[in-house]
Order: sequence, then C-alpha cells, then structure tokens
Amino acid sequence: MVVTDWKTINASVQEWFKEVRCQLLAGCEEELQVAQKSGRTDLVTNIDKQVEKYLVTQIKQTFPGSRVLGEEGDHDQDLATYQGLVWIIDPLDGTLNFVKQKDHFASMLAVYENGHEKLGYILDVINDKLYWGGPESGVFCNTARLPQVPDLSLEQGLFDVSGRMLVRNYRNVAQVAEKSMGIRVYGSAGIGFIHVLTGKTVGYCSHLHPWDHAAGKILAKAHGLSVKSIDDSELDVLSSSDVLVATKNAKNDIIKLMRKR
Amino acid sequence: MVVTDWKTINASVQEWFKEVRCQLLAGCEEELQVAQKSGRTDLVTNIDKQVEKYLVTQIKQTFPGSRVLGEEGDHDQDLATYQGLVWIIDPLDGTLNFVKQKDHFASMLAVYENGHEKLGYILDVINDKLYWGGPESGVFCNTARLPQVPDLSLEQGLFDVSGRMLVRNYRNVAQVAEKSMGIRVYGSAGIGFIHVLTGKTVGYCSHLHPWDHAAGKILAKAHGLSVKSIDDSELDVLSSSDVLVATKNAKNDIIKLMRKR
Repeated sequence: MVVTDWKTINASVQEWFKEVRCQLLAGCEEELQVAQKSGRTDLVTNIDKQVEKYLVTQIKQTFPGSRVLGEEGDHDQDLATYQGLVWIIDPLDGTLNFVKQKDHFASMLAVYENGHEKLGYILDVINDKLYWGGPESGVFCNTARLPQVPDLSLEQGLFDVSGRMLVRNYRNVAQVAEKSMGIRVYGSAGIGFIHVLTGKTVGYCSHLHPWDHAAGKILAKAHGLSVKSIDDSELDVLSSSDVLVATKNAKNDIIKLMRKR
Repeated sequence: MVVTDWKTINASVQEWFKEVRCQLLAGCEEELQVAQKSGRTDLVTNIDKQVEKYLVTQIKQTFPGSRVLGEEGDHDQDLATYQGLVWIIDPLDGTLNFVKQKDHFASMLAVYENGHEKLGYILDVINDKLYWGGPESGVFCNTARLPQVPDLSLEQGLFDVSGRMLVRNYRNVAQVAEKSMGIRVYGSAGIGFIHVLTGKTVGYCSHLHPWDHAAGKILAKAHGLSVKSIDDSELDVLSSSDVLVATKNAKNDIIKLMRKR
C-alpha cells in the first residue's frame, strides 16, 4: 500500500491555493453569474464551479489515480473503500457571503489516504491566511505553527452557530447561547472552523455537508479539539451531519444542553 | 455662534486615530486588566479607559470649551443644550470581541456642533480602515469616498442583529431573519454600522447606548441610509434605544415585521 509523503502533497496544494486565491479575488471584482441550488439562500456562482474545476484538474494531473468529491458536482465512486488518495473539495465556502459581502468566505480541501486523514486546508481568502495541516505535520497558519488554544468552557467563550439553528431554537441552542459569553453568526463553515482553531470562539455548530466539514475536521482533530456530531457520535466524512467543533470542555457543556429536550 | 470648519476638526481627529489604533493594537499583545460592568459579558479593560483618557485629553487641549460624553465615565453636563462642540466617545466598541478574539472591534467618535451633527468616525482597528464623514464632507473610508449602497430590500440581503435579541426572539426578530437572506451576528455596533455602510448587510439592529450609535448615525445618515428606533421614531442621541440602521427599503420591511406582535 503506497503512503505518500505529506510534504509532497503539501508542496503542490500550497501552490494551487495561490491560484485559487487569485481566482476568488478576481471573482470579487467581476459580475457574477449566480444561480440558486436548494433555495434562494443556497447559491452557486460561476466562480465556485471554475475553482472546483481548477482543483480537480490539478489533483488528477499531479496525483494520478486520485478520487475526488467536490461540492459542485465532481464525484468519483467508491470513496469509502478506496485505497489511495481521496480529495474532498469545497471551492468556495460561504457563497452567500462571497456574493453579498465579498468577505467572510473560504476555500477548503481535505486529503485522505487509504481511508486515513492526511491533510486539511482552509483558506481565509480576504485575510490571505491559509490554515493547513494534519496528524503528521501539525497545524499551521501560513508558515507559522498555530498556537494551542486553551481548553475553555462554554461560559468562558463565544459560541458560533448557524443562523438557521438559532432562529428555530434547534436542539435547545438558545440555552447554549445564554450559557456562553455570547453568540456569533458568521455564515461560513470555513470561517467557523478557523475561529475555533484560533481560539476566537470556543465552539461552532451547524448542519454541514462532507465538503463543509472534511478539511476542518482534519485540522481541528490535529489541533487537539473535539469534532463530533451534536449527539457526541463520530462524524462520517461522507455524510451530512449536525457538526460541533469545540474545545473539549465546551463540547461537554454544549452536548449536555443540547441533549435536554 | 462659532461654526468650526469640518476640515480643521478632521485634521486633528485623523491624527488622534493613528495613536488610538497603536494603543489598541498594543493592547492586543499585552495582558489585559478586565473588569465586569453590568454583568459577566459586559466588560471593560484598562485599554478602554486609557484610550478614552487619551481622546478626552486631545479634545480638551485642541478644542478648548468642548464638552464630552465617554462610555467609560467622562461626562460633562448640559450636553443637550450646549452651544459649541460636543464629542461622544466609544474608545473600544466590542470589548468582548477585543478580549476574546483580538478582532472584530472598533473605536468611535461623534462630533456635534451647536446641536447639529458634524462628523462621525468608526475605526475598524484590525483592518486599518477608518470610516469617517458627515453632512458637509460626505463619507469616506480612509482617503476614498465610500460608494453609495444600493437600496436593497430585506429579502435581498443579510441582516445583522444582536445575539440577545435573536435568542429571545425580541419583537419578532426571528421572522425578520427568515425573510432576509440570512442573519449574521458580529457582536460590535461599530462593525455592524460599517457593514451597512459598505453594503455587506442591508440592516443592523441592537439595543444601543449613545456612544454605540452616535458616530454610526452621523455616517449612515450622511450616506443616505435610515437610522431610527425600531418604532420608526427619531433617535435621541443622548438616550439608549433599540436602534435600526438599514437601507430605506429594508427599514420599511423590518419595521413592518417588528410591529406585528
């Protein structure tokens, strides 16, 4: 069974993300073609598709035999059992923010090899910060190792949650909000993961698809954080789930409150 | 009745904000002395007090006879009837974000002369962007005139609201959220005003004190936006209110929904 050196993969991905950033920033300047997916707030643009196409082409050229799962439709089969490199791509996370704000969006990529987590990448495009790493490399922001975050409890920190969950008080989330120091809603899973990775929030919770949580999960686990479903069960990387990433202390507090119904 | 040239005031304030930014960035690096005000999520630090003291000193030295109202306790009398310059100061808006995130906070200053709005300033510290202006000068970000924002409706944009209002569904805010393209919670009035001024959101609503809304109100009005209480009445600059800043179209949509009880 081939095992690829993470540095080989990383050298390529770092280059790709430079191009991805250029494409996304160019997209901020041009007239977008915006289409709805599941509804009026679930958008896709020509830029989402262009960036996914770019990444898929690079992956397949540089690492032949790779399989991919992309948010915008690229989807090889047998990913769960595949031996080799599997790549999960969210070319543009927070498309609504991209369209409406030209800010607060990310681009994400997760790499698995032989079923194991290898590397995760979240690019905060506007701030030019690439968060990357995995179990072998550790976790970095650009070239600097990311400092460990203190294991704060829910009441010691800010809690980031999907607006939809909050408005509907899904699973008691209003009580979680009241116990925290304050809630925040940023509208991007990538930005949500970054804030927990950097200690700006103690937790982030949202209903997420595989491309929304794959990269963040690899990074957060490698950084000593908890990434689970809100039922405290392990995430299946190929399924959509109610995902909670948090410090270990905050995770316990949040899960306890979300269980009360 | 003396009327001061806005350019004279602006030249000084621009210089002061360079120093304010340095003090706030230095505060991000040092161990803070944090105290609670009204509760565990209403914080004040040594930096809030230091910046307010700096601004009050500069104001009184440069424009003798000025009166001030500062969040952290500097409070001259007879502000409502005072002829001359009145300054309303929020040295550090979003103190909880400052303490927990070292990000997403602002510094604000509003200037009135003879009871009239003169100039407003909101400094987005981390992004090094000073939003400033008033009825005479127009509105700028650093040295560039701020582009007009399109008069979008609520359902065409994102809506920023205080977490506390949302968690308690204060005045039907859940329905406002559902009608919008999505809600956002950033936890700073200054950042909230900036997002409406730059078209990143179509509205921002929160219970605000005079220092939270004075600068934003001057800027937003000069930029063609609506700034009212959520009952559609005029704001009293010296009172705390439920404030709504929004495009004119979104304001009508929001007020209609908030009236239904």
